Amino acid sequence: MDRLFLPTEGVDASLRGFARAHAGLVELHEDPTYLLARERHPDRRVGIVSGGGSGHEPMHAGFLGRGLLDAAVPGRVFASPHNRQVYEAGKAVAGPDGVLLVVKNYTGDRINFGIAAERLRADGVEVRRVLVDDDVATESEETGTGRRGTGATPVVEKLLGAAADSGLGLDELAHLGERVVAASRSLAVASRAQTRPADGGPAFELPDGELEYGVGIHGERAQRTVSYEGLEHLVPRMVSDVLDSLERAEATGDDVLLLTNGMGATTLLELYTVHDAAAGALEERGLRVAAQAVGTLVPGLDMAGFSLTVTRLRDDWLDLWRAPAVTPAFPAPTDIPAGTPTGSPAPVEATR
Amino acid sequence: MDRLFLPTEGVDASLRGFARAHAGLVELHEDPTYLLARERHPDRRVGIVSGGGSGHEPMHAGFLGRGLLDAAVPGRVFASPHNRQVYEAGKAVAGPDGVLLVVKNYTGDRINFGIAAERLRADGVEVRRVLVDDDVATESEETGTGRRGTGATPVVEKLLGAAADSGLGLDELAHLGERVVAASRSLAVASRAQTRPADGGPAFELPDGELEYGVGIHGERAQRTVSYEGLEHLVPRMVSDVLDSLERAEATGDDVLLLTNGMGATTLLELYTVHDAAAGALEERGLRVAAQAVGTLVPGLDMAGFSLTVTRLRDDWLDLWRAPAVTPAFPAPTDIPAGTPTGSPAPVEATR
Repeated sequence: MDRLFLPTEGVDASLRGFARAHAGLVELHEDPTYLLARERHPDRRVGIVSGGGSGHEPMHAGFLGRGLLDAAVPGRVFASPHNRQVYEAGKAVAGPDGVLLVVKNYTGDRINFGIAAERLRADGVEVRRVLVDDDVATESEETGTGRRGTGATPVVEKLLGAAADSGLGLDELAHLGERVVAASRSLAVASRAQTRPADGGPAFELPDGELEYGVGIHGERAQRTVSYEGLEHLVPRMVSDVLDSLERAEATGDDVLLLTNGMGATTLLELYTVHDAAAGALEERGLRVAAQAVGTLVPGLDMAGFSLTVTRLRDDWLDLWRAPAVTPAFPAPTDIPAGTPTGSPAPVEATR
Repeated sequence: MDRLFLPTEGVDASLRGFARAHAGLVELHEDPTYLLARERHPDRRVGIVSGGGSGHEPMHAGFLGRGLLDAAVPGRVFASPHNRQVYEAGKAVAGPDGVLLVVKNYTGDRINFGIAAERLRADGVEVRRVLVDDDVATESEETGTGRRGTGATPVVEKLLGAAADSGLGLDELAHLGERVVAASRSLAVASRAQTRPADGGPAFELPDGELEYGVGIHGERAQRTVSYEGLEHLVPRMVSDVLDSLERAEATGDDVLLLTNGMGATTLLELYTVHDAAAGALEERGLRVAAQAVGTLVPGLDMAGFSLTVTRLRDDWLDLWRAPAVTPAFPAPTDIPAGTPTGSPAPVEATR
């Protein structure tokens, strides 16, 4: 039994520690609980709000700051925030063009962000929602609720943040967000369940040598269990499933963004190994990895495993990805030399 | 049994993935294996080289780049690099004032970096070594080998990197490094052992509800096992042990740097909770947390647990900590508003 170092009463102490460690960038509001970025680009006309259950840090509060989110609304572990939190955060950051809500596709989040949107509209604030639903594992089996929102969320938030800084209006941002979501897919595997906060037991059991193929970020059981026979078999299969789903969505474009994300307990040593294999598999399919990030950005507590997210890039999305952001945790694009003009073609070395 | 996603043949694929993901900042050399920063400050007169066994990522390669390390030399998992790797890396980055080696206090690293230093000197390159030995858990019992080098390593490397950019010479840097080491202490606890790469088993067994108090970054067994009775008891005890050791070393100063470090499988949600408690415990002792960082910087593979590192700050060390660095993974100081002049007193808000 593995106890987490978490107080049973919730995540307040963690939020205080976060606000203390990054006091130059963020401020914590209590009752109701939400976090705000201290700065925003002067051209930004729309406040961007995201949030959801805790246990997926650094998402979302770690992405607060100039060039990214204006407000983040954390719930308790794996539980949606209350609509009052979202409403108050939206009021606090509404721009002249209103508020954009970035919502992962889970029932609780949809309901609470939806009520908050209605309340904001009742106050005269324009609101649009971007619903992130990228998880290939849930594409066919849960047709009622649709695909879950997982690893693509940081990508969607980054591109929207950069676009907001260029002065885009609310409808333009919402449209961009929908297009980025439609061009993004993720797939995750777990080799060990996360710890259940309540009693320290594993959230699910896995037979020895098996992986959950298509696991969710809360430990939702996968489509199937597969035998682990090495990354050289696993990763191309995952890449293939992700690309197939993008093909069904008619997302095209030879330049892709690849995010190799840790599920919580997976080391960087492993993630970079996975990343090299995934980038190679994409290149074998004739794609160019024009943008990339590696790290634990969307974990499910301390689950062992990883997810791959692919976004097929179009228009100015690569420039939006590379635009500067100042946040506690969003990874800087370091696959190209510093100072490379964002409008120019990427140097070839970044993808070799 | 939890298999790691690591190929049995070693860490080469991971290094390739790392070099690909951060190609704008680093380059990978093979045969022998080492990594170089692509840029260095024009005023830097000394090349700074660090390294050690793999499994502690992002240390050291993640700290390559302007303002920090010039070369990083990875061994296999938990094994010292070969002296030829260190020698070739040193040759590649030697400045007009020579090479500074930052070495964690382990026998294998001491030997291999020592041989490399002799070979460099035989080539006419000036070399000095800074030996990091901060782990309070090994202060008394292993008097033959001294304290292990653990969580203070990123702090030492950051301050030395910033100082090197100001044009300091080799002897001045070595002297600074020794003083920072003397003013830094760490202590780690584990709630679960890391996975043994060879067979997927746990590297050690822990009774239910117990912690290894004083564990090493390779899973070296602790001074003692303690019952976990909540962070409110554990963290002040750790802070007290760390401060007692600093007192024995006659390290003084009311401004401290606090690094709350994850051992691999510990979530940010937990680490920020720990950080809040640790900062509070330091403040209760009358100290000011003038600089801080939270994250998984020096893990031991996928061990669950955390370490606390305290450095008592003096002279211009706070400025050195806050000086800009451009690396794949070193955390930016975000506890103070961006643009705060580094020479001015820190705003009070950062430590409240």
